Amino acid sequence: MLLSDTIIAIATPPGVGALGIIRIAGPKAFELVDHFFIGADLLKADSHTIHFGVIQNEDEDPIDECLTFLFRAPNSYTGDDIIEISCHGSSYVLQAVIEIFLRQGVRLAKPGEFTMRAFLNGKMDLSQAEAVADLIASDSKSAHDLAIRQMRGGISEEISKLRQELIDFAALIELELDFGEEDVEFADRKKLQELIYKIRKYIQQLLQSFQLGNAIKQGVSTVIAGRPNAGKSTLLNALLNEERAIVTEIPGTTRDTVEEILNIKGVSFRLIDTAGIREARDQVEAIGVERTIASIATSQILVYVFDVTQITPQDVHIDIRSLRRENQAVLVVANKMDLNPYTKPEKFQLEQIPIITTSAKNRMNIEYLKESLYKLVIEEEVQEDSTIVSNLRHVGALQNADASLDAVLSGIDKYVTHDFIAMDIRQALHHLGEITGEIHTDDLLDSIFSRFCIGK
Amino acid sequence: MLLSDTIIAIATPPGVGALGIIRIAGPKAFELVDHFFIGADLLKADSHTIHFGVIQNEDEDPIDECLTFLFRAPNSYTGDDIIEISCHGSSYVLQAVIEIFLRQGVRLAKPGEFTMRAFLNGKMDLSQAEAVADLIASDSKSAHDLAIRQMRGGISEEISKLRQELIDFAALIELELDFGEEDVEFADRKKLQELIYKIRKYIQQLLQSFQLGNAIKQGVSTVIAGRPNAGKSTLLNALLNEERAIVTEIPGTTRDTVEEILNIKGVSFRLIDTAGIREARDQVEAIGVERTIASIATSQILVYVFDVTQITPQDVHIDIRSLRRENQAVLVVANKMDLNPYTKPEKFQLEQIPIITTSAKNRMNIEYLKESLYKLVIEEEVQEDSTIVSNLRHVGALQNADASLDAVLSGIDKYVTHDFIAMDIRQALHHLGEITGEIHTDDLLDSIFSRFCIGK
Repeated sequence: MLLSDTIIAIATPPGVGALGIIRIAGPKAFELVDHFFIGADLLKADSHTIHFGVIQNEDEDPIDECLTFLFRAPNSYTGDDIIEISCHGSSYVLQAVIEIFLRQGVRLAKPGEFTMRAFLNGKMDLSQAEAVADLIASDSKSAHDLAIRQMRGGISEEISKLRQELIDFAALIELELDFGEEDVEFADRKKLQELIYKIRKYIQQLLQSFQLGNAIKQGVSTVIAGRPNAGKSTLLNALLNEERAIVTEIPGTTRDTVEEILNIKGVSFRLIDTAGIREARDQVEAIGVERTIASIATSQILVYVFDVTQITPQDVHIDIRSLRRENQAVLVVANKMDLNPYTKPEKFQLEQIPIITTSAKNRMNIEYLKESLYKLVIEEEVQEDSTIVSNLRHVGALQNADASLDAVLSGIDKYVTHDFIAMDIRQALHHLGEITGEIHTDDLLDSIFSRFCIGK
Repeated sequence: MLLSDTIIAIATPPGVGALGIIRIAGPKAFELVDHFFIGADLLKADSHTIHFGVIQNEDEDPIDECLTFLFRAPNSYTGDDIIEISCHGSSYVLQAVIEIFLRQGVRLAKPGEFTMRAFLNGKMDLSQAEAVADLIASDSKSAHDLAIRQMRGGISEEISKLRQELIDFAALIELELDFGEEDVEFADRKKLQELIYKIRKYIQQLLQSFQLGNAIKQGVSTVIAGRPNAGKSTLLNALLNEERAIVTEIPGTTRDTVEEILNIKGVSFRLIDTAGIREARDQVEAIGVERTIASIATSQILVYVFDVTQITPQDVHIDIRSLRRENQAVLVVANKMDLNPYTKPEKFQLEQIPIITTSAKNRMNIEYLKESLYKLVIEEEVQEDSTIVSNLRHVGALQNADASLDAVLSGIDKYVTHDFIAMDIRQALHHLGEITGEIHTDDLLDSIFSRFCIGK
């Protein structure tokens, strides 16, 4: 992919709309658009100005009345010369305009190629570029906030700063290498250790934030399980406040898993209703139970529901112990409290697992249940400006950097030779640099930007 | 719908894309956007300039980094102050931005409301506004060309000119009324007649162009019919150059109708393959034959196909006479010429209906058949600048205007009193004015603009 190419793409979603935008970026953008645009002399026009006119093809047939938005390098999204052509939102028109420029040798942009150019031209770092894709994909307030924060700086700034401090040390240590046999130390080992402690502490914070970050970005998978007729589907409906799952009084009504999105204070919970766990009476039911087990295995939160009028504390404990994955967050819901209001929830208590008493039918305590779900994920109030990592690639790089820094520390402890310490520092710098893209490979860029949409 | 409201809408198609545009128009557009936009002082900025910044909500949370495109009244699409906000193409972001302004009392625009304002503010006439919707809906070159021509002036200019001439006469005749009993004639009756002849001739041309205009806009419904195993499906595939219909050697393979779009020189033909016409052997086949008859009844062109090795000229004539609708354009295709290359097509000739010899299997003469189909619709070369009417509403108004003008002429012939002539002229002026919108009612505007998309 050449930065010197002029590239073009439709930047608006496919389909019929009022407006459709074509984006053309690269050294020939102005010359070519000006040639086919009647209405203003774009070559002489200022950056950040708008011009009304007609795009016509090679035969001077008018294709559309449109606006051109001019952005001159370097003051544009990509850093290149860019023109955006705002056409009527007809696929035919957009295609016809694009084809004019393709015939002039302009190349169709690949997914994310505009943003990749922005990165390569230094308009944003790699983690900011990734946030652009996250922002476009965001569908809840918290996912949006996370993406915006990352796009506007996020972890990049702090990591770049720490990395620069580490680079300064690396330079000093490498200088020591030049002196070979002489036993000089330009780099203060104690200060280096302190810096590394600081960096590792920051890395640990970031790694700890990943669970939350990932939950915010992907939604939190939450499985509702329990014995037949415990009221799981009624509970799902109460949470969603709509009649989504089929509810009957016949045990075993829910045979397939049902997935719904519940938004609690901006965090998406992907709720999975399941078939009741019991000895299956027929093959269809057996498959349902199997899927329930599978759903629990892949979910972050298990909501175990039981009917307070039907089941002993021992049964509840057996069920939870057999269903729960290791380290899985669990909420226990004592349902149908309306039928037996004097039930003491304490007697069902297992370890520290919270128990919530509800009557799903009467929507009793449903808001409290929602609140409890939220707290399982967001344990404390998220600080407005706290930094949260939501990207698996960043986690990998942070873990690698942390391992390299650990090697540096133990190298210092064991008085290993300068060159090994220098190597480990370089390794840590490499991994930290991967996050912001100061270090990158073509393969990495391909894998990041190929997930973008066309035109971005 | 108040022109003084400030209105807002998403102007790009729904879905995920690189960009999403929000359009806000009306007297408060600048003041409100400026309040929530950090990055430039929009109140002091020039029209037709672009500004980068951040949209934030009432709590100063950043919602998106975006561009604002400024258009100051009257130099905008609607004639109002307009700001277009170019956001990242996430539904969540667009919704969040829109909601900020809705909370400030901005109203969601109705479908076509921006264009309606453009019309009401005199930025375009009604037939041009209608062409905007046609342009957005256009999906073939000729439909696009038609819409662009109408949008850029089309019939409006000529009709406005002729109407103005007629208004001048009407004024003179109404002046005569003021003189009551006195027998004065300010309006030269001969010149009035000449003007009306001229207008009616133009109206006739326009009315004649409608069949073509409508064909271009809607596509030409073309039914392929004939006896079983005449090769209809093979012919359809040959025309489309793909294996669309299921072809076998068993007569009666096609049981349902199949519809495909064939584009010939920019005109869309909606080709309908049908079941073979014959005594049905079972109920499914009977339904197929019934549908064939129904398809023929609603199609503009009948392509009758027969197998030259299987059928007599008498059979061909019987079939065509029984199938053809009155005044329906017909093409006869003598197929399977490869099996009987010495067949003389003349012997199958019925009246002036053109016969084309083909071998659908070998794609022989398929291009010629396409050419013949095209000529059935576009009888002569369409002049680059000829005016074509494609809008049924315009046809109705032209017919009404023509009837009123006819009444004026016969009134002059019969020496009816001035006031009746004046009334008929006013009536003609009214109908001509309906086309360009010089005369309009709220109901008419509602019915036109409600078919637009939101944001246009």
